[in-house]
Amino acid sequence: MMSKKDLAQANLENLYRIFTVPEAPDSTLGMIDQAISDNVTGFLQEHVVALERELEEIEKDFADSRIPEDPTFVSEYTEFVKEKLVAQSVHTAAPGFVGHMTSALPYFMLPLSRIMTALNQNLVKVETSKAFTPMERQVLAMLHRLVYQQDDSFYPQWIHKSQHALGAFCSGGTIANITALWVARNRLCGPQEGFAGIAQEGLARALQHLDCAGLAVLVSRRGHYSLGKAADLLGIGRDNLVLVDTDDQNRIDLQQLKTHCRRLQEQRIRPLAIVGIAGTTETGNIDPLNQLADIAEEIGCHFHVDAAWGGPTLFSGTYRHLLSGIERADSVTLDAHKQLYVPMGAGMVLFKDPTALSAIEHHAAYILRHGAKDLGSHTLEGSRPGKSMLVHAGLSIIGRNGYELLMDLGIERAKQFAGKVQQHPDFELITEPELNILTYRYNPAWAQTALQQASAEQQNQANELLDQIIRLMQKYQREAGKTFVSRTRLRSARYQQKIITVFRVVLANPLTTEEIINAVLKEQTELVLRDEIQDLLIALKAMLPSAAGSTRSAG
Amino acid sequence: MMSKKDLAQANLENLYRIFTVPEAPDSTLGMIDQAISDNVTGFLQEHVVALERELEEIEKDFADSRIPEDPTFVSEYTEFVKEKLVAQSVHTAAPGFVGHMTSALPYFMLPLSRIMTALNQNLVKVETSKAFTPMERQVLAMLHRLVYQQDDSFYPQWIHKSQHALGAFCSGGTIANITALWVARNRLCGPQEGFAGIAQEGLARALQHLDCAGLAVLVSRRGHYSLGKAADLLGIGRDNLVLVDTDDQNRIDLQQLKTHCRRLQEQRIRPLAIVGIAGTTETGNIDPLNQLADIAEEIGCHFHVDAAWGGPTLFSGTYRHLLSGIERADSVTLDAHKQLYVPMGAGMVLFKDPTALSAIEHHAAYILRHGAKDLGSHTLEGSRPGKSMLVHAGLSIIGRNGYELLMDLGIERAKQFAGKVQQHPDFELITEPELNILTYRYNPAWAQTALQQASAEQQNQANELLDQIIRLMQKYQREAGKTFVSRTRLRSARYQQKIITVFRVVLANPLTTEEIINAVLKEQTELVLRDEIQDLLIALKAMLPSAAGSTRSAG
Repeated sequence: MMSKKDLAQANLENLYRIFTVPEAPDSTLGMIDQAISDNVTGFLQEHVVALERELEEIEKDFADSRIPEDPTFVSEYTEFVKEKLVAQSVHTAAPGFVGHMTSALPYFMLPLSRIMTALNQNLVKVETSKAFTPMERQVLAMLHRLVYQQDDSFYPQWIHKSQHALGAFCSGGTIANITALWVARNRLCGPQEGFAGIAQEGLARALQHLDCAGLAVLVSRRGHYSLGKAADLLGIGRDNLVLVDTDDQNRIDLQQLKTHCRRLQEQRIRPLAIVGIAGTTETGNIDPLNQLADIAEEIGCHFHVDAAWGGPTLFSGTYRHLLSGIERADSVTLDAHKQLYVPMGAGMVLFKDPTALSAIEHHAAYILRHGAKDLGSHTLEGSRPGKSMLVHAGLSIIGRNGYELLMDLGIERAKQFAGKVQQHPDFELITEPELNILTYRYNPAWAQTALQQASAEQQNQANELLDQIIRLMQKYQREAGKTFVSRTRLRSARYQQKIITVFRVVLANPLTTEEIINAVLKEQTELVLRDEIQDLLIALKAMLPSAAGSTRSAG
Repeated sequence: MMSKKDLAQANLENLYRIFTVPEAPDSTLGMIDQAISDNVTGFLQEHVVALERELEEIEKDFADSRIPEDPTFVSEYTEFVKEKLVAQSVHTAAPGFVGHMTSALPYFMLPLSRIMTALNQNLVKVETSKAFTPMERQVLAMLHRLVYQQDDSFYPQWIHKSQHALGAFCSGGTIANITALWVARNRLCGPQEGFAGIAQEGLARALQHLDCAGLAVLVSRRGHYSLGKAADLLGIGRDNLVLVDTDDQNRIDLQQLKTHCRRLQEQRIRPLAIVGIAGTTETGNIDPLNQLADIAEEIGCHFHVDAAWGGPTLFSGTYRHLLSGIERADSVTLDAHKQLYVPMGAGMVLFKDPTALSAIEHHAAYILRHGAKDLGSHTLEGSRPGKSMLVHAGLSIIGRNGYELLMDLGIERAKQFAGKVQQHPDFELITEPELNILTYRYNPAWAQTALQQASAEQQNQANELLDQIIRLMQKYQREAGKTFVSRTRLRSARYQQKIITVFRVVLANPLTTEEIINAVLKEQTELVLRDEIQDLLIALKAMLPSAAGSTRSAG
């Protein structure tokens, strides 16, 4: 992997040195540290998303499965990192990277992350975290209050209470969703006369005890894929993750939901939880949370809201109302590494009832002893870093008002983007932004017109060709590395509920300007001129009924 | 929480600024960055474990559940971090902190972590990670090779293969253990004629299909508490986590294991997995892995090895043989944030069979599409940071030979520590170090002698008093903040298999010298002089049969 000519020596003296903090900034390590900082700064200032290089090419730099025998100098390794890793990574902070939920970071997150790393606290127990434990508990309380708005007397009672926790910090939304459903499952199947509870006796006996044939989770088709993993992991089975159809705004269809509930009852399957989505991953829509809360109440099941994306919309006076009903949820997932602008790896789940997490409580002899304030007795994960410090920093430095501006800005930019798509004759808006996510596709004006007169069979054929075009355009754009949008597949009301391929845009980076939005769309119209796409457009034109419209794109 | 006199303004201009990288080192943010670095450096150079301050006192600084309305200046927040968080955290890197598995970090991890944070890659998919995906695949291959030693032709076939992965990176050993058992469960209950598999149909139907009454996991009593969580989460129930007694060296008793296997068969409970431990959390012992592999083969179940702690012992030519048989495991857990000296939050599970992870494979329309090289289709977690880069750095910069030195050093230091405990008349070694962990307790010479002549009843009473003394000593030592050992409770062969409280010491910090070991023990002998402990010693003396020995400690 790297030149072997200047091998560092594996001896204890050298090892002691690397475990010791360099005394002066002009020490070798100090200088390397500075060089790395400068290099990262340079990288972050570039507005390029990624260098145009095939993954298969990059893999050659990471092909050796042997661990190097001898040590390498830090300086030599740093060169490798700069050339082979930093230069070949994706610039997720670039304002033109509007395809996924990873955005620019506030710069202060970098020095603060360094502190967090250097302190190397382990939040599983107070003995390895001390002040970080109350700090994390405070962060959980702050976000609990954002969601549930309990009064001033509530929080002092619970915030630092040893046996309980208002929520669980974790590595991300997936663990948060799994934790929520784990708690819901264990509460539904808790200890009772003659039954020690599902945690103790397992799922099969729990079903016998509840006298039912299975447990189910209900969510719309737009539910995050982590819910499928949860259904698998928790032993309820993916067949019992009921995916309810959505309306034309990608919100759960309440009539369908009720029909499913009735069917489950007939099948003696017990609804474990209804999951509402506050910001679907693919389209950014919000389920009718109040109505979902009503139904969950009616059938007596846990109500979870996956607000991994949309939760911070609660900061916005203008848009908060979209999440109305979230305060009725038994549990809520939030991802701090999404719209709280914290580095990757910070999620959490909050519980309305501060005693809910007792359903998954666990202890050990060397830590997490009864009565201790260790956070680890209520988390799915064990050892965990002090990431909550960065959430604390964001909430303090950006503040409610700052987050409000960020939320409003993203939603307005998305509306602006959608407006430009609608105005452009060759683009077709597929889902309007309710929050800051929208989907659209390239569909030349002449084809849009012709599609209206096309038979169902012709529409299907045409959409298959358009799917190929979208896939190619997204690939070309990604490979060119100047800007980036993602793609997904969605059921379209306009085309007989058939599934079509669309571009997906997420507008969460405050540095994404109108000019950059224009550049994204302009680049796409240029990509259409490539041969492979032109061939597909010619095929599209040949199969559609002829229309009077312009044919410039397939010209 | 902080002074409101100089409120920062929540406006877009200020927001843009915090999302932009400071251009020059002498910008305000650049200077704060430098100040923070200096401060952390200062903290890391101190050899104090923690300041003496009550947790309840610290909680007062983190008591407000309201998110601040207005932004705070970074400089002001930084002061808060320095005074209230850094100063009140635990110095896990201090050479006198020998109580838990968190050690000093090689200094190069800090600038490299900064790069990782700044790049903010998301390893769930190639579109947000590019070079980081092949890099993580390489790290998995390197550690797979360390454990399984497949030949040169094996790795090029699998390392970058899109549908497969040699393992799964994750936030820590808990997720790694859960992933291993999840895979084991889903393979045992895979799709067959008339059954779509447990992932699809759930646990209850899987049991019907396998025609058994339950699934079980077998591990020794020294198994990590994450296995209990796994049994709960996966729906098999904690009752079916069979905790097998250990021999006097804290290794699983093979006869007992076989007896349990026979009992399970009679009860129609199917063994899902046998878990061997390579470095028990509390005592650092290693199960007889080859014999466990034989038994797992015989009964046809998955063999998992939890090598979260002990795995890197494979680097040592001298001690590698202790883990003999690990190469026969179907899966192995390793924690990079333990003995690979990577910052908190880096675990992994490796699978011998590169197709094993197919049992938990999942897809989504917007990412993780079939055929893509996205690592996220085989992980329990979703979005994940690029922590594997730091493992790559450790393996490259420290190298096999460097890690060998570190492993050998820790084990030798532990032997040295154990020797000092044995030589000292007032300490009693409870478990000898097989790796770099040992347990012992304070037990004055006169009491040790008297205990030999004591009745069973007297022994129990005496041990209860000694338990109280150990608890107090550990608390006083922790609170004094100069050095730190942890405590746990273990069954003791010497005292009729009764459970006693002991000090637990982990020697993984290469900066822990003989002088520091002496200081730890000296401090403990001084803590004994405190009133509360003296009172307990007097009570101890009063209840034990009188002996001819010295009574200096209880004077």
